[in-house]
Amino acid sequence: MAEETVDALARAQAVDGSAGAAHRHDALLSARAANIKQSAVRDVFEISMQPGLVSLAGGNPNLASLPLERLGETARRIIAERGLEALQYGGGQGTLELRTQICEVMAAEGILDADPDNVVITAGSQSAQDVAAKVFCNPGDVILLEDPTYVGALNTFEAYEVDVQPVAGDEHGIIPSELRTRIAALQAEGRRIKLLYTIPNFNNPSGVMLAPERRQEIVDICREANILVLEDNPYGLLKFDGVLPAPLRAANPEDVLYLGSFSKIFAPGLRIGWALVPAHLLQRFYLASEAVTLCPPTFNQLLVSDYLGSYDWQGQISTYRSLYRDRCAALLSALDEFMPAGVSWTRPEGGFFVWLTLPEGIDTYPLLHRGIDAGVVFVPGAAFTAAKGPSNKLRLAYSAVPPETLREGVKRLAPVLAEAIAAL
Amino acid sequence: MAEETVDALARAQAVDGSAGAAHRHDALLSARAANIKQSAVRDVFEISMQPGLVSLAGGNPNLASLPLERLGETARRIIAERGLEALQYGGGQGTLELRTQICEVMAAEGILDADPDNVVITAGSQSAQDVAAKVFCNPGDVILLEDPTYVGALNTFEAYEVDVQPVAGDEHGIIPSELRTRIAALQAEGRRIKLLYTIPNFNNPSGVMLAPERRQEIVDICREANILVLEDNPYGLLKFDGVLPAPLRAANPEDVLYLGSFSKIFAPGLRIGWALVPAHLLQRFYLASEAVTLCPPTFNQLLVSDYLGSYDWQGQISTYRSLYRDRCAALLSALDEFMPAGVSWTRPEGGFFVWLTLPEGIDTYPLLHRGIDAGVVFVPGAAFTAAKGPSNKLRLAYSAVPPETLREGVKRLAPVLAEAIAAL
Repeated sequence: MAEETVDALARAQAVDGSAGAAHRHDALLSARAANIKQSAVRDVFEISMQPGLVSLAGGNPNLASLPLERLGETARRIIAERGLEALQYGGGQGTLELRTQICEVMAAEGILDADPDNVVITAGSQSAQDVAAKVFCNPGDVILLEDPTYVGALNTFEAYEVDVQPVAGDEHGIIPSELRTRIAALQAEGRRIKLLYTIPNFNNPSGVMLAPERRQEIVDICREANILVLEDNPYGLLKFDGVLPAPLRAANPEDVLYLGSFSKIFAPGLRIGWALVPAHLLQRFYLASEAVTLCPPTFNQLLVSDYLGSYDWQGQISTYRSLYRDRCAALLSALDEFMPAGVSWTRPEGGFFVWLTLPEGIDTYPLLHRGIDAGVVFVPGAAFTAAKGPSNKLRLAYSAVPPETLREGVKRLAPVLAEAIAAL
Repeated sequence: MAEETVDALARAQAVDGSAGAAHRHDALLSARAANIKQSAVRDVFEISMQPGLVSLAGGNPNLASLPLERLGETARRIIAERGLEALQYGGGQGTLELRTQICEVMAAEGILDADPDNVVITAGSQSAQDVAAKVFCNPGDVILLEDPTYVGALNTFEAYEVDVQPVAGDEHGIIPSELRTRIAALQAEGRRIKLLYTIPNFNNPSGVMLAPERRQEIVDICREANILVLEDNPYGLLKFDGVLPAPLRAANPEDVLYLGSFSKIFAPGLRIGWALVPAHLLQRFYLASEAVTLCPPTFNQLLVSDYLGSYDWQGQISTYRSLYRDRCAALLSALDEFMPAGVSWTRPEGGFFVWLTLPEGIDTYPLLHRGIDAGVVFVPGAAFTAAKGPSNKLRLAYSAVPPETLREGVKRLAPVLAEAIAAL
């Protein structure tokens, strides 16, 4: 199961981090340490790893279609022939070669003017979120975000004592007028809003894509309010069909800090992500990143560079698009077939996730355990929101599960949800 | 040149991070962002990379004696045979296999009771320092440390607005009575001291080893004052001869958070370090680590595991010990031969560095540029201290330089220092 899912389940249970009895070292903990959530659901994971259980919880990419033999040979050659470089410290910003290639990846994503000098390679894009919070946020500062949003970002921001504030959205993403209203209300309270964190393409967990016609207006609203946009786009290239909408960053180089990742289009186990930073913020961001990890892993960068330089990485993305399109279709079809009345869900055009809404009054957290009893695992919705209290939502991931297993998982889930609805 | 050296030179120049003209986004920066130093000496690096220049600046390990062909084949096999695991997300704490093997490495370092459950694998040990500062330190809290100490730790701690306070030491490391006095003085001022950060074995940059007979007393003093010891031991196994002194952690599992690294004994380009965390602090530390990087790179962990499981890693360390012993001896011999009167230096028993002291009144920072003109690069002492103002110290690294080149470097450096002394 993806580690992100562990976080999500921990967060869904909302247990605070103070484990066990008091200790004299408790006095040594920082104020922010209290915001770092403890996982009290490790037992659930152990259970969820049991054979026979269908996991619709983990947002892992499907790696089976990667050319593993050839990638192994590439890895061999890098270490045998360039080992003194591959195994040595490197520059804190990442290699120029990979930063240059990342600009080509961003061109495919719709950003045509990226300069390798403004790219900072990070230990996964999670690390770039951490650096952004560190560089921009004092305790109590506000980050606006979608509700629901990525559990890892919530955890990272809250570890800096950031006040994460949701902005209302619909099936086309953040609603510009709602953003305007929210900013005005928070500013009227004297709050300092630093960032808008958004996953415009196939949001994790909702699968929602921000409508192209809303994008520039959202950036304009933020610019007027002097709020930097933190755009997280790991799924952008994984649109099933048609033209990709331009990222918010595309026409707004000064107002958007853009985060990218190889975790969904290549290999999360290499932990290589990046930030494209507005030029005037580059030094701050880069040096803060260096203070956390010194430098990104050199071998990993060389392997990604070879993959981008010598393999048909765009063809692989086409493969992924149709693979995930088929899986998403299988999941949606199973939902249509099996879900009881009262349950609704999103119909994503890309990415890894479908988001289910149950009738008001149902808490999906206790249903997790009933689902496991029925042989299926999902992530309860409370994981993906800063709001306290129960959630009537849940996330299903189709990325790592073959179509027939998706169908079986939904078939097992349906009576659990039906029973909860009947008990209302 | 090692990235750490870039930091060091930047720090030596003590330039603040505000680059260029004011921008409306300056208002978005966090208070801690002002503490993140900017490198204004990148030009110096570019110069220092010129062929013909002898660099005694970079603390890179010597990787030439690693079996690169065989390691390449191991990497090939891992990806070809276990690619679906190696390239996928992993657990946030790191693999159980590697955590178990790390306990064997720590046994070689003198810690016999480590439990894999209390090990957290991090993206280099720098990342563990970052997490420690995050979990324990509010702005204004004090971390005690050696003076001089590791530039990366200073940068990391200051990024959390920590007040780093030096404790006086001598050629045998921190002086216990000075530690006691310093704690009392700071507590009398109402300061909150959270951690003592120490590199007891072959401190970077001084090369000094903390005397074995002082070690327990230092832990006892910290325990009485409820200060957690953060022990950083990347060079512990690289003692040239004789028995390794026991780490502070060895007999003090509750009072020492221990940091280890594969960067000096294997491969820094893999960015695999670890923390051995007191059991009562484990959950906090682990979850904070997960919030930064989600999980350490999986492939890299599998490669290190194979190296520890199938290679003669202890034999490789013996090779390194004699290699670095010979290089250190060559450097010391050249210093004896060429250095002018008024210069003194440490005589390390292990590690990578020798620390030079010039007469009072000399600032080694401007000498950096004169050294480059003379064909040799070093790191000025101001990099390694929290104290403001000029430093009459400098660091020479022998780890990455063959003996004859070390001699040539010192020969070039001597007249630069002699001239500075003559001008006093």
